[in-house]
Amino acid sequence: MIRLSVLYPATEGATFDHDYYRDKHVPLAVRTWGLDGAEIDKGVDGPYVAAVHFKFKSAEALQEAMAAEGTGDVLADVANYTSIAPVLQTSEIVA
Amino acid sequence: MIRLSVLYPATEGATFDHDYYRDKHVPLAVRTWGLDGAEIDKGVDGPYVAAVHFKFKSAEALQEAMAAEGTGDVLADVANYTSIAPVLQTSEIVA
Repeated sequence: MIRLSVLYPATEGATFDHDYYRDKHVPLAVRTWGLDGAEIDKGVDGPYVAAVHFKFKSAEALQEAMAAEGTGDVLADVANYTSIAPVLQTSEIVA
Repeated sequence: MIRLSVLYPATEGATFDHDYYRDKHVPLAVRTWGLDGAEIDKGVDGPYVAAVHFKFKSAEALQEAMAAEGTGDVLADVANYTSIAPVLQTSEIVA
């Protein structure tokens, strides 16, 4: 299983609309990529103000999602909730 | 639900023993804190070579775990698998 974590670092002068993120953006990504769901984090302490964790069956499934037709719309939607440039982390879930 | 993510940034000259981490260290932390389990990541692409995600019922439960008697042993064990200084992120899981 592959995890794609998208992490939003706290950034001077930037805002983040957590409601839009939870109610609109992440559901759009989940629908676009045909996933069962995703876990959404609201930062309490540490370098990140928000994050999402998507799980894919394989590295190939992740690559297919990134290349999918709707992925451009998902990326274009980011401007609707934040100006923060996210950090992307791809990992194999080993346990 | 509160997530504690422990993220290990790729660090010049540092090593990380993924087997020890999965088989010894994270199980020690899970036992010490009385958790059901934890998700362990092995980095594939991005700034982190490894990570673990623990879930706690509440911020109070996390605080109690950090103050627990065995937590010193958990922290002392880090030197057995890496010299990387981890990044700690605490978040509320909102979905």
